[in-house]
Amino acid sequence: MTKIALSQRQAAQAALELPKALRLHIGLFGKRNAGKSSLINRLTGQNLSIVSDIPGTTTDPVEKACELHPVGPVVFIDTAGIDDTGELGALRVGRSLSVMQWVDLALVVIDAAAGISADDENLLASIRTRGIPAIAVLNKADRVSNEAASALARSPALADLSALPVSSLTGAGIEELRGQIARTVSETWQPDRPLTEGLVPRGGLAVLVTPIDFGAPKGRLIQPQTQTIRELIDQGSRCIVVREDQVAGTLSELRRKPDAVITDSQAIKAVAEQVPEDIALTTFSILMARSKSDLTALARATPFLNALRPGERILISETCSHNPQGEDIGRVKIPNWIAQKQGGAMDVDIAVSKDFPSDLRPYKMVIQCGGCMVTRRHMLARLRECIAQGVPMTNYGLAISELQGVLDRTLSPFPEALAAYRSEREKLEQSGEL
Amino acid sequence: MTKIALSQRQAAQAALELPKALRLHIGLFGKRNAGKSSLINRLTGQNLSIVSDIPGTTTDPVEKACELHPVGPVVFIDTAGIDDTGELGALRVGRSLSVMQWVDLALVVIDAAAGISADDENLLASIRTRGIPAIAVLNKADRVSNEAASALARSPALADLSALPVSSLTGAGIEELRGQIARTVSETWQPDRPLTEGLVPRGGLAVLVTPIDFGAPKGRLIQPQTQTIRELIDQGSRCIVVREDQVAGTLSELRRKPDAVITDSQAIKAVAEQVPEDIALTTFSILMARSKSDLTALARATPFLNALRPGERILISETCSHNPQGEDIGRVKIPNWIAQKQGGAMDVDIAVSKDFPSDLRPYKMVIQCGGCMVTRRHMLARLRECIAQGVPMTNYGLAISELQGVLDRTLSPFPEALAAYRSEREKLEQSGEL
Repeated sequence: MTKIALSQRQAAQAALELPKALRLHIGLFGKRNAGKSSLINRLTGQNLSIVSDIPGTTTDPVEKACELHPVGPVVFIDTAGIDDTGELGALRVGRSLSVMQWVDLALVVIDAAAGISADDENLLASIRTRGIPAIAVLNKADRVSNEAASALARSPALADLSALPVSSLTGAGIEELRGQIARTVSETWQPDRPLTEGLVPRGGLAVLVTPIDFGAPKGRLIQPQTQTIRELIDQGSRCIVVREDQVAGTLSELRRKPDAVITDSQAIKAVAEQVPEDIALTTFSILMARSKSDLTALARATPFLNALRPGERILISETCSHNPQGEDIGRVKIPNWIAQKQGGAMDVDIAVSKDFPSDLRPYKMVIQCGGCMVTRRHMLARLRECIAQGVPMTNYGLAISELQGVLDRTLSPFPEALAAYRSEREKLEQSGEL
Repeated sequence: MTKIALSQRQAAQAALELPKALRLHIGLFGKRNAGKSSLINRLTGQNLSIVSDIPGTTTDPVEKACELHPVGPVVFIDTAGIDDTGELGALRVGRSLSVMQWVDLALVVIDAAAGISADDENLLASIRTRGIPAIAVLNKADRVSNEAASALARSPALADLSALPVSSLTGAGIEELRGQIARTVSETWQPDRPLTEGLVPRGGLAVLVTPIDFGAPKGRLIQPQTQTIRELIDQGSRCIVVREDQVAGTLSELRRKPDAVITDSQAIKAVAEQVPEDIALTTFSILMARSKSDLTALARATPFLNALRPGERILISETCSHNPQGEDIGRVKIPNWIAQKQGGAMDVDIAVSKDFPSDLRPYKMVIQCGGCMVTRRHMLARLRECIAQGVPMTNYGLAISELQGVLDRTLSPFPEALAAYRSEREKLEQSGEL
């Protein structure tokens, strides 16, 4: 059936669902035919995936958002078998492994009847190396004796993991698995940090600045704005939503100073001119960096922007392929600003969606988008990879503030990040690199 | 392939698309195998539907949002053949005809090689009766001579329609059809009216009130709020988003009066107490009624709420099946308020999504939701049907204001609707029905 369409009803439902990026991401990994798809079906009680006896039915990772009792809203990611063969198979295995980097929890699905294979052992090693929280699921337990299943669970290869015998066929062990998922998650999950924490107190007032050139179609707001408005309402704070040419006018109409002005990065220069120095000013993108990643680490890397030389290679990394209206911020505006400041064009690569390269050494610098569509663990995994390979990573918002000469100002609500930024800048200045 | 899943990338894209309800809806109607699905594929250049030679492949109406040059953002609705047979077939035909009521444009797809059948003539009669803008598409024109196609286009059955020979197979006539769609639409489309028109001037200031009990999951706002914020930004106006317990405090912090206070209906009573009489006050739901339907007609029907007697049958009509958090407004709160006011419970039927009954005579009254997920034509079709059958139709927002005793206040920004409401109320009072 190629007829794939969301009814208006389903679309309505989707709009009323928790955004995917705020859900816990659970990846299923294992050999072909270990029963990953049927395990998802059993856990969710729905027939989401093709379940067949032909090994390797799951090619691209398939994501399914649902409610998993007693864990809450999750996204299951069903991956290709790690023992896939051939050229295409190798590609699929590569994709499965790259998914692994940013899941919040890995379920390692092992065919209990087949035992632990060399592929399974390699998989477990990758998970250990990357420090991914994991549970071993000994699937098809209905095909072995209880004794055999217990012995398998106690095998040295699984020594540091919870290992549970489960049967997707009969449902045996599924409740125990749900409970174990909930326990593991409660100890390890890294959800987004609140966007406005420490910036707007409960009952406070924020001014949110939205540029006229909007980047979202009629009837919509972009995700960071929606999330910020919602978070402020939830904590009993208020916000005034204005355009960049109305900031000064709005401030003069208020009897009190707002606790903060938060602007779209692209309008930061115009807005900074209108906001008195004694009012905290930052950007949505900097708040996203703090919520989704490590703001201090990203701030520390930002001065390297000024050490770039024309022709050097940089990576612009986006986590979703949106359809930007007008000039694209990552592909056009940021590269142009760098070229202007550094006196010549850079050699720019673009990584879209989940195609973050594993070898980052060709790049002098990585500039990452806000990541509003992905999880915190995903963003932290990218940052960790950059740090491990010695490539400075900043994000769109920090880069734009820096290139507009206002980063001292937009970072000042976050003293630790500001200090890291300044100290790195000084180091570079002293070393003569700037 | 039953593996249907949106990737994170697609989900991101969907979030950045124009909401479906703001798109032009084009329905395709005709006999089985007249080539409706292949025509959509040819018009959009995508392989969206199953195209097969087995008559009747399209069972449920399938909707597909896309960009149609030179028309703009549209939703195509592919319906089941009107000549479908058997019990299930009759159901499908019924569904196709009910879709017809709310499309903005009907493409009547006729197999040029087969000529105009009795089924086609019945279909054309239904379309005429309902006053639906329509174009006749003489498909499979590649199978007949140009003369035969022209003769067919001039046949008396199509006298009042534009009729175009088209071949989905070769693409002949497709450009002409696109042009004709654009022309017909420019004359007949009834897009939503702006929500805040006449209420908040350009450069003005609105206070938007959001209840604490939110009805949308973390990280989201409900559609009427998002649309209102976006519309205000687009027209250079500003808004302050506050909770219902912060309205008075916020007003006291402003050096100027806002142009309007717009509140979630559920908080209207608490908000009305905080807003001075000289500031316009209304609800999102009343704005939706004006944007999507005929506010005056709905207001005129609202006093009938007070003439309901316990045990009488009413219809609560929702256009989407959301997953409400907490107490449902349509299913629980409104019926409870009516029962309280009228001294006993009503006999309440619920119509969900597109299952609006064709026979409304069993109902003393219809209470319709805001319709934020559907088109204006859809809402007007429902209203027209109610008026034709002599059943008063109001909407959630008007009903809530009325039941809370504040409808004179929340309608006062709309003098025509207020006058209609008051005059009907007086009539009912004089006739002794209230």
